[in-house]
Amino acid sequence: MDATIVGGSGYTGGELLRILVRHPKAGNITVTSTQHAGKKVSSIHTNLRGVYDKEFKVMSEKTLDADVVFLATPHGESMNIAPKLVEKGVKVVDLSADYRFKDVKVYEQFYGKHASPGLCRQAVYGLPEINRSKIKKTQLVANPGCYPTSVILGVLPLKGMNLKIEKVTVDSFSGTSGAGSKPTEFTHHSEVDENLKVYNVGKHRHRPEMEAVLSEQLNKKVKVSFTPTLIPVIRGIQSNIHISGKSSIDMMKRYKKIYKKEPFVRITEMPYIKNVANTNFCDIGVWQDQNAGEVTVVSVIDNLVKGAAGQAVQNMNIMQRFEETEGLKNIAGHP
Amino acid sequence: MDATIVGGSGYTGGELLRILVRHPKAGNITVTSTQHAGKKVSSIHTNLRGVYDKEFKVMSEKTLDADVVFLATPHGESMNIAPKLVEKGVKVVDLSADYRFKDVKVYEQFYGKHASPGLCRQAVYGLPEINRSKIKKTQLVANPGCYPTSVILGVLPLKGMNLKIEKVTVDSFSGTSGAGSKPTEFTHHSEVDENLKVYNVGKHRHRPEMEAVLSEQLNKKVKVSFTPTLIPVIRGIQSNIHISGKSSIDMMKRYKKIYKKEPFVRITEMPYIKNVANTNFCDIGVWQDQNAGEVTVVSVIDNLVKGAAGQAVQNMNIMQRFEETEGLKNIAGHP
Amino acid sequence: MDATIVGGSGYTGGELLRILVRHPKAGNITVTSTQHAGKKVSSIHTNLRGVYDKEFKVMSEKTLDADVVFLATPHGESMNIAPKLVEKGVKVVDLSADYRFKDVKVYEQFYGKHASPGLCRQAVYGLPEINRSKIKKTQLVANPGCYPTSVILGVLPLKGMNLKIEKVTVDSFSGTSGAGSKPTEFTHHSEVDENLKVYNVGKHRHRPEMEAVLSEQLNKKVKVSFTPTLIPVIRGIQSNIHISGKSSIDMMKRYKKIYKKEPFVRITEMPYIKNVANTNFCDIGVWQDQNAGEVTVVSVIDNLVKGAAGQAVQNMNIMQRFEETEGLKNIAGHP
Amino acid sequence: MDATIVGGSGYTGGELLRILVRHPKAGNITVTSTQHAGKKVSSIHTNLRGVYDKEFKVMSEKTLDADVVFLATPHGESMNIAPKLVEKGVKVVDLSADYRFKDVKVYEQFYGKHASPGLCRQAVYGLPEINRSKIKKTQLVANPGCYPTSVILGVLPLKGMNLKIEKVTVDSFSGTSGAGSKPTEFTHHSEVDENLKVYNVGKHRHRPEMEAVLSEQLNKKVKVSFTPTLIPVIRGIQSNIHISGKSSIDMMKRYKKIYKKEPFVRITEMPYIKNVANTNFCDIGVWQDQNAGEVTVVSVIDNLVKGAAGQAVQNMNIMQRFEETEGLKNIAGHP
Repeated sequence: MDATIVGGSGYTGGELLRILVRHPKAGNITVTSTQHAGKKVSSIHTNLRGVYDKEFKVMSEKTLDADVVFLATPHGESMNIAPKLVEKGVKVVDLSADYRFKDVKVYEQFYGKHASPGLCRQAVYGLPEINRSKIKKTQLVANPGCYPTSVILGVLPLKGMNLKIEKVTVDSFSGTSGAGSKPTEFTHHSEVDENLKVYNVGKHRHRPEMEAVLSEQLNKKVKVSFTPTLIPVIRGIQSNIHISGKSSIDMMKRYKKIYKKEPFVRITEMPYIKNVANTNFCDIGVWQDQNAGEVTVVSVIDNLVKGAAGQAVQNMNIMQRFEETEGLKNIAGHP
Repeated sequence: MDATIVGGSGYTGGELLRILVRHPKAGNITVTSTQHAGKKVSSIHTNLRGVYDKEFKVMSEKTLDADVVFLATPHGESMNIAPKLVEKGVKVVDLSADYRFKDVKVYEQFYGKHASPGLCRQAVYGLPEINRSKIKKTQLVANPGCYPTSVILGVLPLKGMNLKIEKVTVDSFSGTSGAGSKPTEFTHHSEVDENLKVYNVGKHRHRPEMEAVLSEQLNKKVKVSFTPTLIPVIRGIQSNIHISGKSSIDMMKRYKKIYKKEPFVRITEMPYIKNVANTNFCDIGVWQDQNAGEVTVVSVIDNLVKGAAGQAVQNMNIMQRFEETEGLKNIAGHP
Repeated sequence: MDATIVGGSGYTGGELLRILVRHPKAGNITVTSTQHAGKKVSSIHTNLRGVYDKEFKVMSEKTLDADVVFLATPHGESMNIAPKLVEKGVKVVDLSADYRFKDVKVYEQFYGKHASPGLCRQAVYGLPEINRSKIKKTQLVANPGCYPTSVILGVLPLKGMNLKIEKVTVDSFSGTSGAGSKPTEFTHHSEVDENLKVYNVGKHRHRPEMEAVLSEQLNKKVKVSFTPTLIPVIRGIQSNIHISGKSSIDMMKRYKKIYKKEPFVRITEMPYIKNVANTNFCDIGVWQDQNAGEVTVVSVIDNLVKGAAGQAVQNMNIMQRFEETEGLKNIAGHP
Repeated sequence: MDATIVGGSGYTGGELLRILVRHPKAGNITVTSTQHAGKKVSSIHTNLRGVYDKEFKVMSEKTLDADVVFLATPHGESMNIAPKLVEKGVKVVDLSADYRFKDVKVYEQFYGKHASPGLCRQAVYGLPEINRSKIKKTQLVANPGCYPTSVILGVLPLKGMNLKIEKVTVDSFSGTSGAGSKPTEFTHHSEVDENLKVYNVGKHRHRPEMEAVLSEQLNKKVKVSFTPTLIPVIRGIQSNIHISGKSSIDMMKRYKKIYKKEPFVRITEMPYIKNVANTNFCDIGVWQDQNAGEVTVVSVIDNLVKGAAGQAVQNMNIMQRFEETEGLKNIAGHP
């Protein structure tokens, strides 16, 4: 299977490449970059020195001639590339937000004018735990956002319970790799280290994504109060999710049962990002506070793996009818 | 003014000493330690080398003969020392939880048998922002817990608003110095770095402290859903506080007005722990999410300063009729 | 191939297991621990939850009945286990220092009485880059220390040059995982973070190991001035190596040529630990300072991989006639 | 005493301001910034919110009308400002490299054309430990570089000993604040965290500064082999300094004796950056390795304090005949 990564100089593109060069089914892997075309990929992703020695290519008919194309392009660019690929019969995994919303109006409210709204309803939201069979048949997967992946997987098992699921309160904490490879004051080491930086309170663009998917999945209008914070860690998201209500059932048991067959979801009382870093796992813990009347779910992922590149490869595996865990068997380090 | 720190080998005792040696009104400062008596204080608190060259003393009548005694002793030990000091007319600031609860039953439920319950009602909860005038007159101050300090200051201005204040949802994030100086697996560098460690979900002993103080202050039974997490940072607590409800007032303005005269509370849209580290400040931001119907308050302090030693000195200043900010004028570094 | 890890509850044992469970040739893997026998391995190495679900075993005839036994035991314990295994024909990779010294006297000077001195001369120092053919034939490999691995690989290419190689000055910087999993004040997060801790200046036990191997390899009495420092990083060693002398040759070219065929040595102007973390690579840079008359080599490894468990598996691969890189193809993350 | 900080939006300017606002002798403090003129200083240095509420000013006759002017301007800019100030009788502390070299040719070789070479010989190199009496009388102090401060203070006590002082080998490790406040890939959090970045090996511009001062002080041509590395820490420099030779004297004793009267130099076996962070201290340890024939000195400072702003204020104190430690009594935190 030949694969092309469009926009491969960022962290997500680099992580995709890191996974694909060790993927047992991967054949030719091409990486494009407008900015770095002609440079060695390993001059940017220095971890790949001696492992992947090709150069960044310019995006072209030829470089896009692959079995699967991953669009690691910014929001607003994928929508200009995907339609032609779909038409040509190429399978596409888009890591931007461009095809995550069925309702184009919501997309446009948060991201700007959409260039190919028709394709939005055709695209499948690439969270295998809810859309596995649709992913198998589609040609265009909209890979979920990192925060939404952690939150949706944490909330889903509460479906059908007698809780006030209409409002979900989420405090999410993300490592700096989630902010991308471009140096900014926000992610300058001296400013981030020994600090926490709360940002975009109630205004983050992943909020409508969570609301759309949760509302659809739970058959209810769900509102999310979302507060993200940047943490002095490279990889990892921890989402603390709170829902009002009481119940007498054993929640850990419920979660374990529901995710029993999922290869990448583990239920544990210690959902630590360390255990999922560099892996495609989502670890989830769940607690009931009978005193306050609240269910608390803590969900952790590696933002670049299950939150981006790993999930993209998981989707590719499903589309290509490979073993779903192929290329994604990495284990976190201890320590 | 002569001062004695009982139990001065831990981080809180060390921080107290660090503040007191630069306090303009401080005379003789004595530090006791059962474990390290006879050793140079600066062999444990190496930051004080060349600054404070005395030794740890054994606690005794003589070492306790001071104007103010700070009890930086573990919960359960202060209660055996404080009564005699109070009787002798010595002013006491207890940094343990022993006198934080007016209702001894609540204390005993979470900490164990109380040895001097009579003194509990006499002690004043040492949060100057609510009890300044009482602190001025008391002989025994119960210095608040670190998490409660950040949460209570964040919630107080909501008093009287039409919000569902009966339930307060709190995600708090604390640096490792809050866990003390004793090496444990929980705080082993290799286990904490690049990690977040959620712990004691719904069960932390600071939860009843917050509930007791908030219920009293807000004249309402307040329940707190409390989820603490350890972060790879040395100093600092960030508490994300959520309350259901909508309002149309300008919250930042309200908070600024209410805390206008407080020397150590700053209202800001960027409540970052970096700006309060090594200082006695509490920085607070507040947001309204009209979409989800929720008020979110983010409150940050240095757990060892405003969350412990700094607040203790602030209380001492008030008791001693010194300028309240005396010795507490340190400014955080940038960066 | 069946393998047993003796003493598998520490970081080195955990890393060995992490590599072996993904090794294509690994059959049954057994892990022993005196302290944790009966507990699930994944309760200690929580990264392995859902991946390796067996329990720690007590060391016994049966658990030692494997094709290869890794001794991840402390110095002084391996020497009591290895002899019987060698006698029984089991292949042994000892990760302790017990068989690293041909001259038992040097061992005893730094580590204490040796229980099986006879085996010392038979053991092969397991640095494949110098002893590949001997490793192939031996039954007992003494896996090198972490600091020595980084230093020896950095110095070797200088052999035969006209430099004052009799004295090698080394400043090494190591992540905290190198100090093991046992909590101590030395590795307490609050003490290590935002700090550097120089220790054992001139007295570290890896110094005689470097001197012995370098003297043998360079046919000259080599003395090493060795200054180690603990850094606020989990994994990684950087060794700055200085040798007096001037030369006009292109050093980078020389190093590249010498290590051309080595699968795990890369020559680069940016020898960063980030690029070797979680991998078996040793990245090396070399500079000549004509002004001061000095050659500076900077060598980086992951102390737990090329500095311990990875190199042990590399040695196993050689002993077992597997592909040398089998199970060791992990790539560092970016970022 | 009125003071002006020219170029106050960077980290050094911010640190100067942080010290000066708490300096007992400081009157009016003015801060200029070309880029940020008109903005509140505390919008950039957010640590000063509620402490210093003035705005950045444009540099002008009026803003420069102060008792002391600190030039926290980049190399090449100070030389255009200093001459007029000196002429007007204003005291100047220049934190750039512009007046650090007596020999303008050396400056021009490393920094570019000098605009006021005449002033170079008049300026005093502001290391109080060697030039206190000259600083007292000068109008223009050239504040030393951060790396040179740590290295020179570490080497000076070896003067007159029978060691091969002609070549000094230095490995220095610096926190990211030393690289300034401007975001770059080099200091991007995701790239620095869990990493070490060796850079400019043998080519750093602080090398000729060390060589010039050491040669002058030791009356010998001294060459320095200098290898700097960026570390994942905000503040702090550790310099490991190696000199060949053997001696039988007690080095710690010698160092203690020599620095006995220095208020900011402490001799200790644990020279940790943690103990000097946020302070003007330089902590130094010294070891002799009789085996390898080498003296190793480890010297630590806070790059922004003793390595920049603190030393500048120390120089100001001397010039102004204030107590030398005035405003510089901050103690490092523990932890």
